[in-house]
Amino acid sequence: MKAPDRLVGILGGMGPAATAEFYSKLIRRTPVTRDQDHLRVAIWADPTVPDRVGAVLGGTNDAYPAMLEGAQRLRDLGATVAVMPCHTAHFFLPALAKDSGLRFLDMVGETVAELERRPGAAGSVGLLGTRATLASGLYQNRLREERFDVVVPEETTQWQVDLAIRKVKEGNQEDAGRHLDKAVHAMARTDASLIVLACTELPLAARHLTPEGSTDLLDPTDLLADAVIRECGGTPPVTGQQKAS
Amino acid sequence: MKAPDRLVGILGGMGPAATAEFYSKLIRRTPVTRDQDHLRVAIWADPTVPDRVGAVLGGTNDAYPAMLEGAQRLRDLGATVAVMPCHTAHFFLPALAKDSGLRFLDMVGETVAELERRPGAAGSVGLLGTRATLASGLYQNRLREERFDVVVPEETTQWQVDLAIRKVKEGNQEDAGRHLDKAVHAMARTDASLIVLACTELPLAARHLTPEGSTDLLDPTDLLADAVIRECGGTPPVTGQQKAS
Repeated sequence: MKAPDRLVGILGGMGPAATAEFYSKLIRRTPVTRDQDHLRVAIWADPTVPDRVGAVLGGTNDAYPAMLEGAQRLRDLGATVAVMPCHTAHFFLPALAKDSGLRFLDMVGETVAELERRPGAAGSVGLLGTRATLASGLYQNRLREERFDVVVPEETTQWQVDLAIRKVKEGNQEDAGRHLDKAVHAMARTDASLIVLACTELPLAARHLTPEGSTDLLDPTDLLADAVIRECGGTPPVTGQQKAS
Repeated sequence: MKAPDRLVGILGGMGPAATAEFYSKLIRRTPVTRDQDHLRVAIWADPTVPDRVGAVLGGTNDAYPAMLEGAQRLRDLGATVAVMPCHTAHFFLPALAKDSGLRFLDMVGETVAELERRPGAAGSVGLLGTRATLASGLYQNRLREERFDVVVPEETTQWQVDLAIRKVKEGNQEDAGRHLDKAVHAMARTDASLIVLACTELPLAARHLTPEGSTDLLDPTDLLADAVIRECGGTPPVTGQQKAS
């Protein structure tokens, strides 16, 4: 593709492994035959941003100034569009877009739109994410507006999700996969016909799922990467669905 | 580790997949237990920089202005140290450091230093890289100063290296691995007791090597990541050597 006048800003570091994985994914999904066909990208990855889960659950603004500083840096670099590959931080997305003047693509909006496009998508949607993402209703409110039923994990399943996320942040993706596996199996016993990996650490854990599972997984970072490619005039390869099987 | 006052600048995009892999590697090798222990990183990835191989082989300056612009952006963001995960582009490193005023860590210097540290390192060193990296003498001059013998590929082996690099840039790492495999096997029949993967696309191809090889591979991007971690006050985990076996 050809978009030398575009600059994609990635507001990252929350966490770093998820940022690197998103950047890799954007590269893999961009249709190219040589380096020069790829998109120009600027990444601001500040992992010292205070804990986002604590900020959302505690109703504090502790994490916001550092996030806004990152958005302003990307704007000043000339980013024509920006993304933030962290679901929990999407709680702050409207304020970030307003305060920085940067155009952000919305990972939650892309995911809801993808679910609406799917044939027979009226079933229940399972959500796996941080306690902050779930408690804030970030996904549930928009999914319910579109008449989807939403299934969130029971407490013991949420423990497994918490551990999967923590293990990715510690650099241990295999252990993360074992915890996510337990969560996916528990969700498969609910009404959910599809599970949204609503935390950007979870796709890294999902590489290590056991082959027994048969639940459809939807990875919003695939959809966000594809939205970036479309925004820059390209055609992404396929939809983002994958089978946990 | 704790280095909230440091900012690592990565001058990337040459190529993008190698940049993403370097960033992932830096994250994997940084000793942490949580997001906030990771290094602050800014990446400027402009894949539209004109062909570096052509510029070095043709003796032109075509690629330089865009590279310098990237270095200046990283400097203006406040980078306290910078790296450029592309060997061919290291031809321009002294000029970039001088013209931007940015402190760059030198991947070639790190590699030569690692070879000197190794016990019994007096054997021949095999070099796999772009034709520009080899033609410029970037590695050979410094290795010969340290009394290493250097083995470069024969023409038919270089074709395989060229193809391995091109396939990574096209997003086809498995095919890249097949070509690199042929090159590694050819080098194993020379005097080289160790092979330096002197192109940042090659470690991505090396993931797909067949298990038969028994030649030691040295990945300079491991050493560069470790140099960044040391520069920021941390202790990297291990040396960068891996077995192609």
